[in-house]
Amino acid sequence: MAREGARSKDSAKPGIKEVAAVAGVSPTTVSRVLNNRGYISQETRDKVHAAMKRINYTPNDIARAMLNGRLNLIGMIVPYVSSPFHAQAVQAVERTLAENGFKMLLCNSANRPDLERSYIDMLRRNMVDGVIVNSLNIGAEAYAEMGLSLVGIDCDLGETSVQIASDSYGIGELATRRLIDDGCSRILCLRNNSRMRMPANKRTDAYHDVVEQAGLPALVREVEFVKSDDEKSAVVAKILDENPDIDGIFAGDDTMAAICLNVMKRRGLSAPDDIKVVGADGARRTMTFMPDLTTVRQDIDRIGELAAQSIIALVNGEKPESNTKLPVELIEGKTA
Amino acid sequence: MAREGARSKDSAKPGIKEVAAVAGVSPTTVSRVLNNRGYISQETRDKVHAAMKRINYTPNDIARAMLNGRLNLIGMIVPYVSSPFHAQAVQAVERTLAENGFKMLLCNSANRPDLERSYIDMLRRNMVDGVIVNSLNIGAEAYAEMGLSLVGIDCDLGETSVQIASDSYGIGELATRRLIDDGCSRILCLRNNSRMRMPANKRTDAYHDVVEQAGLPALVREVEFVKSDDEKSAVVAKILDENPDIDGIFAGDDTMAAICLNVMKRRGLSAPDDIKVVGADGARRTMTFMPDLTTVRQDIDRIGELAAQSIIALVNGEKPESNTKLPVELIEGKTA
Repeated sequence: MAREGARSKDSAKPGIKEVAAVAGVSPTTVSRVLNNRGYISQETRDKVHAAMKRINYTPNDIARAMLNGRLNLIGMIVPYVSSPFHAQAVQAVERTLAENGFKMLLCNSANRPDLERSYIDMLRRNMVDGVIVNSLNIGAEAYAEMGLSLVGIDCDLGETSVQIASDSYGIGELATRRLIDDGCSRILCLRNNSRMRMPANKRTDAYHDVVEQAGLPALVREVEFVKSDDEKSAVVAKILDENPDIDGIFAGDDTMAAICLNVMKRRGLSAPDDIKVVGADGARRTMTFMPDLTTVRQDIDRIGELAAQSIIALVNGEKPESNTKLPVELIEGKTA
Repeated sequence: MAREGARSKDSAKPGIKEVAAVAGVSPTTVSRVLNNRGYISQETRDKVHAAMKRINYTPNDIARAMLNGRLNLIGMIVPYVSSPFHAQAVQAVERTLAENGFKMLLCNSANRPDLERSYIDMLRRNMVDGVIVNSLNIGAEAYAEMGLSLVGIDCDLGETSVQIASDSYGIGELATRRLIDDGCSRILCLRNNSRMRMPANKRTDAYHDVVEQAGLPALVREVEFVKSDDEKSAVVAKILDENPDIDGIFAGDDTMAAICLNVMKRRGLSAPDDIKVVGADGARRTMTFMPDLTTVRQDIDRIGELAAQSIIALVNGEKPESNTKLPVELIEGKTA
């Protein structure tokens, strides 16, 4: 019913023909002015713009896109927009896109390869100009085959793409060193299970290097990012049962750090007294909810801005910096 | 550069020109058939359709939308997708839309009327089929004028729209009663300053009713949702300075509850011993980060699903339930 209203409204709206009649030019000329194509004198251009203003004509982006092959539309694929890192990154990307006349089609892949593939098909059918990917669960070729502008946040999408990431090795290094400096000798490292080789894996590489240099044993366990918090809690409880000597945890990200602290609390264990805990990411909301968390902060706003600026540059045929690694910072809290 | 790849790839697929050649008509005629514009005889129309079928020409979603006036595209306006309620709602809406072949254009209005207006223009230019609004900072007429399907989450967008909201009065009632049952006699109620009359205002209405019935004084203060956490902290600190007898806080939402708890902690005050604090919303991530928070939980996933289902029904010309109020639940934590 609302749709019927829309249609009758649309058909009453002035179109190119009406603009042409008022301006005293042909519809083709109006179309050329709108799309900036062919030679048009300034005088004609002014007449057309005056006519558009006079009859309150707003050109439609879709019609224009059919003509010039460009919608200024960007797809963004995240696993879950409700996770603190992705929520803040999506917000920064969208604001930066909007400030530059671009729009975002949001996709939550839940880290499922099948959903990610169907989003790629959807984005292709909808003529997006570029894709920002924040979680890769399929081969990067699937994106390369789109032949579009590509930006990976913590994802390598291939040679012609742009990659924006924090210094992942630095995250693992700062967190692990902090725990060793605190006197921990049996440090657990939690990591998301990632099907793909992603820069974030370097957090674990750094953990391995740092504990080895310190002559300490490595203890790495995977926790599936897609599991529910209850399931993750059960995994953490089992790890603590099997390794009662754990005295430090590099949780991989802040949500896992929160889950570890909650499991510990239910067992009467506290941080930093019984087990020291360091998270990673430091999203704004997380720090408001858990101001005592010791974590390694990424500059998520900057990551989002850079991702948006890079995809716009690529769409415009420019060549932005292809690989940006942003510095990270240890935030001293009270859990380590 | 990536864009060039896209163009050459596209040109390999059959296009309007190829359809025209096979049908023995001009490309303009094909375009007219696709866009249902101008006079076209049935015979020509049939020839074009046969040619499209013969060379396996599939108009993309955009071209098809030009044909049938429908993109299956929904705009969603939130103030900040990084706030826990909105992040979870957007995720639930997007997943439900995607499962039904619809797509979401995400808009972060930052609660700024100017941005909200420019998003409305953008959505209109992009031929969205409907809009889901989760924060209203301008008159609802601006949406009604779009002539599209409309769903308001906690927003009344006018007679022909659908409204999905939690029982906002229940939120204020449960929270305030909980504080009174706890023995509080000087209860502060924080609220977002809302320019518009929104259902969420009923949280404060309930607070007023409940404290009045209990013979207690009302103390309501506004905290602008758009301010930074530091600015909000300063506002809370000032309120506590001016009202040292406050022994209970209904914080309006969980983020404000976290900010109150942080300000209290810096002054050596703890909850529930010195001041009891109750939040509202109970987003999944919030409860992981603050498992001890006493709050009133909304069924955010259900709100998102219903909003998506309702907008799809409206776009399909069906008549979904126009006003759904979802129950809320007091979550017993340790801050009250």
